[in-house]
Amino acid sequence: MNRDTANRRLRAGIVGGGQGAFIGAVHRIAAELDGQAEVVAGAMSTDPQRAAMSAQSWFLKRSYTSFQEMAETESQREDGIDFVIIATPNYLHFPVAKVFLEHGIHVISDKPMAFTLAEAQAEVALVERGDLIFALTHNYTGYPTVRHARELVRHGILGDIRKVLVEYVQDWLMEPVEKAGNKQALWRTDPTKSGISGCVGDIGTHAENLLEFITGLKISSLCADLTTFVPGRALEDDANMLLRLENGGKGILTCSQIAAGEENNLTIRIYGTKAGLEWQQMEPNTLLFKEPGQPQQILRTGLPYMSSEAQAATRLPAGHPEGFLEAFANLYKMIIADIRRVEEGNKPMGGYPTVHDGLRGMQFVTKVVESSQNGSIWVNL
Amino acid sequence: MNRDTANRRLRAGIVGGGQGAFIGAVHRIAAELDGQAEVVAGAMSTDPQRAAMSAQSWFLKRSYTSFQEMAETESQREDGIDFVIIATPNYLHFPVAKVFLEHGIHVISDKPMAFTLAEAQAEVALVERGDLIFALTHNYTGYPTVRHARELVRHGILGDIRKVLVEYVQDWLMEPVEKAGNKQALWRTDPTKSGISGCVGDIGTHAENLLEFITGLKISSLCADLTTFVPGRALEDDANMLLRLENGGKGILTCSQIAAGEENNLTIRIYGTKAGLEWQQMEPNTLLFKEPGQPQQILRTGLPYMSSEAQAATRLPAGHPEGFLEAFANLYKMIIADIRRVEEGNKPMGGYPTVHDGLRGMQFVTKVVESSQNGSIWVNL
Amino acid sequence: MNRDTANRRLRAGIVGGGQGAFIGAVHRIAAELDGQAEVVAGAMSTDPQRAAMSAQSWFLKRSYTSFQEMAETESQREDGIDFVIIATPNYLHFPVAKVFLEHGIHVISDKPMAFTLAEAQAEVALVERGDLIFALTHNYTGYPTVRHARELVRHGILGDIRKVLVEYVQDWLMEPVEKAGNKQALWRTDPTKSGISGCVGDIGTHAENLLEFITGLKISSLCADLTTFVPGRALEDDANMLLRLENGGKGILTCSQIAAGEENNLTIRIYGTKAGLEWQQMEPNTLLFKEPGQPQQILRTGLPYMSSEAQAATRLPAGHPEGFLEAFANLYKMIIADIRRVEEGNKPMGGYPTVHDGLRGMQFVTKVVESSQNGSIWVNL
Amino acid sequence: MNRDTANRRLRAGIVGGGQGAFIGAVHRIAAELDGQAEVVAGAMSTDPQRAAMSAQSWFLKRSYTSFQEMAETESQREDGIDFVIIATPNYLHFPVAKVFLEHGIHVISDKPMAFTLAEAQAEVALVERGDLIFALTHNYTGYPTVRHARELVRHGILGDIRKVLVEYVQDWLMEPVEKAGNKQALWRTDPTKSGISGCVGDIGTHAENLLEFITGLKISSLCADLTTFVPGRALEDDANMLLRLENGGKGILTCSQIAAGEENNLTIRIYGTKAGLEWQQMEPNTLLFKEPGQPQQILRTGLPYMSSEAQAATRLPAGHPEGFLEAFANLYKMIIADIRRVEEGNKPMGGYPTVHDGLRGMQFVTKVVESSQNGSIWVNL
Repeated sequence: MNRDTANRRLRAGIVGGGQGAFIGAVHRIAAELDGQAEVVAGAMSTDPQRAAMSAQSWFLKRSYTSFQEMAETESQREDGIDFVIIATPNYLHFPVAKVFLEHGIHVISDKPMAFTLAEAQAEVALVERGDLIFALTHNYTGYPTVRHARELVRHGILGDIRKVLVEYVQDWLMEPVEKAGNKQALWRTDPTKSGISGCVGDIGTHAENLLEFITGLKISSLCADLTTFVPGRALEDDANMLLRLENGGKGILTCSQIAAGEENNLTIRIYGTKAGLEWQQMEPNTLLFKEPGQPQQILRTGLPYMSSEAQAATRLPAGHPEGFLEAFANLYKMIIADIRRVEEGNKPMGGYPTVHDGLRGMQFVTKVVESSQNGSIWVNL
Repeated sequence: MNRDTANRRLRAGIVGGGQGAFIGAVHRIAAELDGQAEVVAGAMSTDPQRAAMSAQSWFLKRSYTSFQEMAETESQREDGIDFVIIATPNYLHFPVAKVFLEHGIHVISDKPMAFTLAEAQAEVALVERGDLIFALTHNYTGYPTVRHARELVRHGILGDIRKVLVEYVQDWLMEPVEKAGNKQALWRTDPTKSGISGCVGDIGTHAENLLEFITGLKISSLCADLTTFVPGRALEDDANMLLRLENGGKGILTCSQIAAGEENNLTIRIYGTKAGLEWQQMEPNTLLFKEPGQPQQILRTGLPYMSSEAQAATRLPAGHPEGFLEAFANLYKMIIADIRRVEEGNKPMGGYPTVHDGLRGMQFVTKVVESSQNGSIWVNL
Repeated sequence: MNRDTANRRLRAGIVGGGQGAFIGAVHRIAAELDGQAEVVAGAMSTDPQRAAMSAQSWFLKRSYTSFQEMAETESQREDGIDFVIIATPNYLHFPVAKVFLEHGIHVISDKPMAFTLAEAQAEVALVERGDLIFALTHNYTGYPTVRHARELVRHGILGDIRKVLVEYVQDWLMEPVEKAGNKQALWRTDPTKSGISGCVGDIGTHAENLLEFITGLKISSLCADLTTFVPGRALEDDANMLLRLENGGKGILTCSQIAAGEENNLTIRIYGTKAGLEWQQMEPNTLLFKEPGQPQQILRTGLPYMSSEAQAATRLPAGHPEGFLEAFANLYKMIIADIRRVEEGNKPMGGYPTVHDGLRGMQFVTKVVESSQNGSIWVNL
Repeated sequence: MNRDTANRRLRAGIVGGGQGAFIGAVHRIAAELDGQAEVVAGAMSTDPQRAAMSAQSWFLKRSYTSFQEMAETESQREDGIDFVIIATPNYLHFPVAKVFLEHGIHVISDKPMAFTLAEAQAEVALVERGDLIFALTHNYTGYPTVRHARELVRHGILGDIRKVLVEYVQDWLMEPVEKAGNKQALWRTDPTKSGISGCVGDIGTHAENLLEFITGLKISSLCADLTTFVPGRALEDDANMLLRLENGGKGILTCSQIAAGEENNLTIRIYGTKAGLEWQQMEPNTLLFKEPGQPQQILRTGLPYMSSEAQAATRLPAGHPEGFLEAFANLYKMIIADIRRVEEGNKPMGGYPTVHDGLRGMQFVTKVVESSQNGSIWVNL
């Protein structure tokens, strides 16, 4: 690498995420939060007017209407972007990543990594051939409490994992809002934009990723029952599945976008031979630690007993709640530090989801659909 | 019937439940709580000394060492017992019930109703032939909040039920305590005392009963994955299962006795086309009502908006917590009222679990074991 | 004493508590819950018909319309009552207690102990002259978690107490329901039935008693601001006060019956030099333990780490919620055991509120009113 | 005004907030979060090395060691700062503000506004003479739920306010950490840096501000009991006070920095003639709404029923937790918009705490100390 990144904020570009797509602003805020990067360029919409207005509202220095053009131009400018953020609908994730990687620009992509399993495999090959950072924003792994949970498992505090219950339930698709003009719903329920899966691809993969991230265990087989409850919808909006883990542990994963009255309830419970854990995304600064015969303990972000992994992901004193954006920014912090390392000729240190997690997610989705379509049978993963 | 029960407390006998078995005291307290019955006789242990001491500690008027003798004697006394409470290990439930029914004595039995499906079917036939009350203490249906939940479903407030998540997790068998002399654990983990199932029979049936009680829907098929985590144990101590409901709804049921740090966590969540519900047994005076786009509502026992079904099961003003014993006593209240009705020549009104719920439970356990033993396949129920 | 109480349930009578007064049923259930006593006689109302119906609904053996007659008759019967329960409005507490004590019958009285401070002092003298048990049902001290809290303080786990926050807020008097025929409200807002104080006497004394019970510290001075918010009401329905404790600690006590949307929220928080505690009556099986720099601990009724004081007040395994009636019954359990001891010629062991707590409560109410009436000045207690 | 701010991020400078002072980073993040401003200059420490390192770690364009120099230089540069952020210890707040105001630079100051009441009055005069924006970061008013609470009161949903309970309790000063080198503790417990009050000035003023912000009512008189529990400390570390509100309502305010096991627990409860509210800063996305006789409602940030005031302060869909930094940034968003308005010659719209809130806070602190020093008497405010 040859960029001098030492005494400046990194420069970022963004593809997608124009006005109306909340995830664009999430990426910008998260990228800039620690003062280590600035979004300076964007191809925020294929609609020129929307692209221009989106760029202007952020005071971007350069606005494009084509991501290919952006990749070419930026890669040739002396003050071009160091990395690109991909915040488009799913079917564009891989094509955009490919172009920027080929132009020597680091990539931070929304999940899922690709539209199909084949694309995902191609992407792994592409990334492994080069020296560029490719990171995937499975953002829930950025919470200090989640990172602490992983440390507890790693250090054997839970013993061998026996049972995992993970769920991610929402209600925002319980009515056919895609027919009422909800853009977020429109592409997510459209197989040509979203892929072979609806609810599982959108949120089930976060649950799967969180389970494997914290436990360090792979799901070895699963039996899935997908349902489309809203009439006329092409993709499932609800899923229940039994899981078996590589170590003999058992689990359940349920995700839904028709769970009446639920906002964004991602909850995981893990039970080992020594102790258990519980974490709820909607109150993310709390981690419940459960030792048999002992009082349950309320572990809280920012207190001195938290692991150094958790402390590194904490910005405020205890009792000053940190949330979704801060967790998202924790991934960016690690990724940006790695981009700096790579640009200075050093090895990246990781700690955030990569192309391998992205492939894993695509395999998971593929197998879940396969199980359900064959009568909800057991399939190996 | 020919007993005059009008101006007195009913007289009860108890089989089992001697010192050391907490469930005996639960039944006595629940039976007597509303001043409508008194336990006067017992065959509380086959060990004569333990039987005598147990009876004495409760100031029972008559103590037996054989339940057959008790049935014969009591049925012939003018002041004999009106009903018997069965609080023995599972394998005795049916034989005891049979003897008392044959002697014309009403029966209130702990669940499961019988040791095998065949016994359960025989018991249904026996009960249907006569005019005696047979009730099963699926006690969690006695909570006011649970009864209110059923009313909400019945009145269509939730719309059509789409998804049900029910769980019952504990940790008291996470170590092989049956080998360390824990009597409660000993018979529950012994197939000759407990039956073909451990965890599912013991607590999973409560979860199944609660699901069907509140939703009014039958489970039509299931796919179960049973696990024995504690080495050397003969019966499963953990179960995960996918459920399909008769109306097309889907569900998950998980139960465990190895879930580290969990006390007695029975929780049910129900999602319909209009609204959702959540209830946790460990904070039983609260019922969460979840309407999409509206604030979640915290429904509380004793407040005026609760249904008459809930009010009838409430003894105290709001904010004065009622618990497990009061819920148990709510079943007894309805059962005793029905015994009075029957003795006065009137029709019973029901409202509590009966022999049909008992049969349903045995069918459920049988099918769960069948599914799991055949590779966790789908089976119809 | 000369009654033989060894091999039987004790016999109780009740004064007041007729139909419509929930506290009557609470006393009966609590007295009988552990199978150690039975209510057999009552003077439940001065209205003969209501007295008769109340007695009949409980299958009482003997019903009176005059408590004096009941005291005389019962004291002369061989199978007369061992103790009386006083569940009348406040102004009768002392006269009733006096008559039964003079007839050699033990007394369990609702709080406050008396109508005036002078009466309370007379009552102390009367009780101290004799050998009869006199107990006051400050029932919140009966919860296992409350008893455990006291043990933690006693054993120095909290260090020196610095700060106590106690509150008891309800909303049932936020409208002038006494004018709409609410009988409970009627006597509680009437100075001729209730005494010099409304809200403080009714519920503030529970808060004061709880504070002194758990901390073992006396309130040494206070500054109180009483308010009557509902127009036309004669007694205060809200109170705020600053407290100073005998050891130099500081505190706040607030109580209200006009706190919109609150049921029966009695909450206490205690902060010492080493740790803190929090307990909420509406979720009484939980006690929060707070050590600086450590995870907060959720202590729960029934788990093995609870003190023997708490275990003695627990009937069920952990996770089987116990409530208000069980806490009330815990006082009865101790009181009945003491009545047995005294009748057998032994010394009572105590552990429940007595005439001294009753006097303390009357002093507290008197001083609170004095402070407020003199411009909310500081007064010594 | 004469700056052209239309098509660019505003430029900010910061005084104080160097490495080790968490509040500096809070201000930078909050100022930059919405992409509307960038911190470009700083006088972050009087220690030249610390100043330089602090500035470098944020990639600031210009670093100063004197705030006076910074004010002079920046006010003369064409690309000078538009506003200054004051993040110093209390005794510098006014002198710094004065210099920048005199150089025509807008000011955003940490609270308290000044060191003494006299300074505060001088500051009001100074600000009123000019056209510059002066804002005070009483940041807790930035939470969407707090803004919604105020709307509920404003629209009469609570009726007349009768009772307010507000508390702010922490434990970080329960040991004499100022003697162990804790810099944050050092200046906060030092009267020459902090002012006449410790705990009340530091956090009690947030509680007072929150109470008056939400209710729209002034505290009319108070009776305060301040305590210094940690030996050798010069300022109080605990305070309890009774409040009377201008409309006849009553209240309690308690704040503490010695409340063992508490993190940063700012909680407010408000009871009106129609309904009540409860909000806890540590779970800030939830607001409890309490209507008598109705289920309590859990109002949540981001849901459609929230007021437009709350929506304007929300960046993410419901269930994606926002925290302290986002609330802080909400103030900055409004302040920056007002700076743009003023620079364009328009009127500011407000919505954030100003010099008048700052004066109010100083008056409050002064009166609290006066009350306590005179024997905890009532004083008018």
